[in-house]
Amino acid sequence: MKSNHIKLGFILHGVGFTWNDWRHPDRDVNASTSLRLYQEQAATAERGKFDFLFVADSLSITERSSPHYLDRFEPVSILSALAATTSHIGLVGTITVSYSEPFNVARQLASLDHLSGGRAGWNVVTSWLGDTAANFSKADHPAHATRYRIAAEYLDVVQGLWDSWEEGALVGDKESGRFLDTSKLHRLDHDSEYFRVRGPLNIKRTPQGQPVIFQAGASEDGRNFAAQRSDAIFTLAPGFNQAASYYADVKARAAGFGRDPHQLFILPGISPIIGDTDEQAEKLYRELAALETLTTGYGLLSRIFNDHDFTSYDLDAPFPDVEHIGLNSQQGDTVRLLAEVRAENLTLRQVVQRFSTRRRSFIGSPETIADELQRWFEQGAADGFVLFETIPGQLERFVDRVVPILRERGLFRVDYEGRTLRDHLGLGVPDNRYGEPISRRPFA
Amino acid sequence: MKSNHIKLGFILHGVGFTWNDWRHPDRDVNASTSLRLYQEQAATAERGKFDFLFVADSLSITERSSPHYLDRFEPVSILSALAATTSHIGLVGTITVSYSEPFNVARQLASLDHLSGGRAGWNVVTSWLGDTAANFSKADHPAHATRYRIAAEYLDVVQGLWDSWEEGALVGDKESGRFLDTSKLHRLDHDSEYFRVRGPLNIKRTPQGQPVIFQAGASEDGRNFAAQRSDAIFTLAPGFNQAASYYADVKARAAGFGRDPHQLFILPGISPIIGDTDEQAEKLYRELAALETLTTGYGLLSRIFNDHDFTSYDLDAPFPDVEHIGLNSQQGDTVRLLAEVRAENLTLRQVVQRFSTRRRSFIGSPETIADELQRWFEQGAADGFVLFETIPGQLERFVDRVVPILRERGLFRVDYEGRTLRDHLGLGVPDNRYGEPISRRPFA
Repeated sequence: MKSNHIKLGFILHGVGFTWNDWRHPDRDVNASTSLRLYQEQAATAERGKFDFLFVADSLSITERSSPHYLDRFEPVSILSALAATTSHIGLVGTITVSYSEPFNVARQLASLDHLSGGRAGWNVVTSWLGDTAANFSKADHPAHATRYRIAAEYLDVVQGLWDSWEEGALVGDKESGRFLDTSKLHRLDHDSEYFRVRGPLNIKRTPQGQPVIFQAGASEDGRNFAAQRSDAIFTLAPGFNQAASYYADVKARAAGFGRDPHQLFILPGISPIIGDTDEQAEKLYRELAALETLTTGYGLLSRIFNDHDFTSYDLDAPFPDVEHIGLNSQQGDTVRLLAEVRAENLTLRQVVQRFSTRRRSFIGSPETIADELQRWFEQGAADGFVLFETIPGQLERFVDRVVPILRERGLFRVDYEGRTLRDHLGLGVPDNRYGEPISRRPFA
Repeated sequence: MKSNHIKLGFILHGVGFTWNDWRHPDRDVNASTSLRLYQEQAATAERGKFDFLFVADSLSITERSSPHYLDRFEPVSILSALAATTSHIGLVGTITVSYSEPFNVARQLASLDHLSGGRAGWNVVTSWLGDTAANFSKADHPAHATRYRIAAEYLDVVQGLWDSWEEGALVGDKESGRFLDTSKLHRLDHDSEYFRVRGPLNIKRTPQGQPVIFQAGASEDGRNFAAQRSDAIFTLAPGFNQAASYYADVKARAAGFGRDPHQLFILPGISPIIGDTDEQAEKLYRELAALETLTTGYGLLSRIFNDHDFTSYDLDAPFPDVEHIGLNSQQGDTVRLLAEVRAENLTLRQVVQRFSTRRRSFIGSPETIADELQRWFEQGAADGFVLFETIPGQLERFVDRVVPILRERGLFRVDYEGRTLRDHLGLGVPDNRYGEPISRRPFA
């Protein structure tokens, strides 16, 4: 059964998401590495009883990168710091499987799950920027399909390592001197196409058993991976129709994999602009949009095409032939964009302008925002939302003005029902693969 | 000039260091993953105005591993959590260069340095357990000499990445829309024997410019690496004479590399047992020693020889021929031990017993401990000490009873003089390799 509560997450960040958000008068341009700012955001989201905080990531920059790519905290470190100053809210970090070691990542997430009392989540991503290889002593960046094959095996390894310690493996009997029940400590002995990992992991079973898995797949391979393996999907949908179409598609895929589609949460990323009235919200939006330049359009476009530089093309010629680049980078977005380009015969200028001035959904009074959230939630476009703040102060306004309306309508929690991220999402603790199923334990 | 203050660090841990410390009545056997316990230890050390906290690490366990290896927090995560709940004390983490990526490690430490306001330190180690390769999809563990060549190049890369952003690279001029001074953002373009890393790092210059470098070299290669590249050395010295000999040797090497030997701090690890009187301390020591078994002896011995299993040898035969194993694992300790074995013609039983019942220095009343610390400090055996707690409560006793005596004698700070780990150690902020030297800046 579909939950009757909307799930809410918040993306932590310091200087906004586009190339110009940082120019807003209320924005501290150094905030990307300010623990205090992140603590304030975390405290506000926790006061609002949000399900989780979310940290995005990437591993390669150039002079053309956007401000929030250029300068950012590494996810494990900032989430661990926030674990110590929050008590309930989930902590979800993006970590790529393309340039990291599963043993190290399994450990860091298990460590975060212990530190936080069971609040860790992992947004499993494959790196789409080909230049990343140059930061990791690799000759080549793996192709799109390969990246997803690596991801599937990598996740097998990490989840396998998380089962290394059965419940009760640590005995700690001081009298007899028996610290460990060695029959409950397991090697993984994984040996397959990309990884060979023996185990066991050097940290005991975590409060959640398995940290929660997030994904953000938009391509065919990405959607299948997310539908099969993730607990929650972070997606970027320009509007209701695309969100609803993505929602139906991924839920059907999940069912096709034999899963209960209600146990897979689809969470579009949105950045509400909330005014006292619809008119005031429009004004806030126009002030923000006035800061925009073509740089943002070029930048958002480049991001889909492996940081390709579009500034050397004729702006008024037809959109250039860069499909091959995009298909191996942000494949899902490439397919979507090129369909628009072909249907409307767009020039490069038209595409760049569209990206620069892309109008967001969710602009209006608290009631308007709540109505729209409810519509997306009830009409098959979302199980919840991941908020990001393009104007400083909007998170606070959302918590103080929109959340109470959602509560009145019975669409959001009044208080946390439990302590772990799995509790918040209504996901059970998975059985350990080596142990007695939880359902068969005498006192389960 | 040698500092007139002793440096003090504390190793965080949950269940002690040998195979039996966890059996002490006051020990919580689950404490290895208790954030609360670590926060308490951190708060006590900070109350005592210690220079830093230290987290040890390793990446491979078997059923034979000691309790504090089996189950432990990953260093970046626990130190980041403590960054949020402490204000002054340094945060030093052990991270191996053998099974990690310099780009990721440079980022995580830079992130920790920002999070903590300039308190990050890195204990650069090479992994000595050959089995670690099996957790990282590697066919072979690199040989001892190779590990140190990798370490030197790895450190070049990490320190190079830390210079990616000159001071002032982030302009953030909202009016003109100029976020970055691109002339102050630098690629590293490192390309050598083991690593090829382009950069720049995706986080701006940190409060310390460069986090502080710790090392723990005992072998020839290790001593040279530490003497040349580190700011502080964590060493394990069984007694004053060995400590003094190590101290003289490494300081001479540092001078040989053209360094000021006073800017390299040699810090033996010690675990004081403090009683109200010498007699009471002796009693505490005997209670602890009574928990010991041959397991500890076997375990400590195995740890030097790549986790080699010694239980199948005849205990009363001469010590077995395992030199080749040790020389490729913990080379420094192997050389030292085998010299003892040859000089005294020891059997395996004698070695195992010696390890099981190894008597520690620093057992006595607060005055006795302070006298001994002062002797080591003033007579050329130490610049300071890294404490570890084999009996719960000893850190607190050290802070409350020994630190005041050191203060009275002018040997330890009354309060922190600054905010960063470099401030505490009296180390300046290094120049950025691309920028104007600090000494030549107009207002330096």
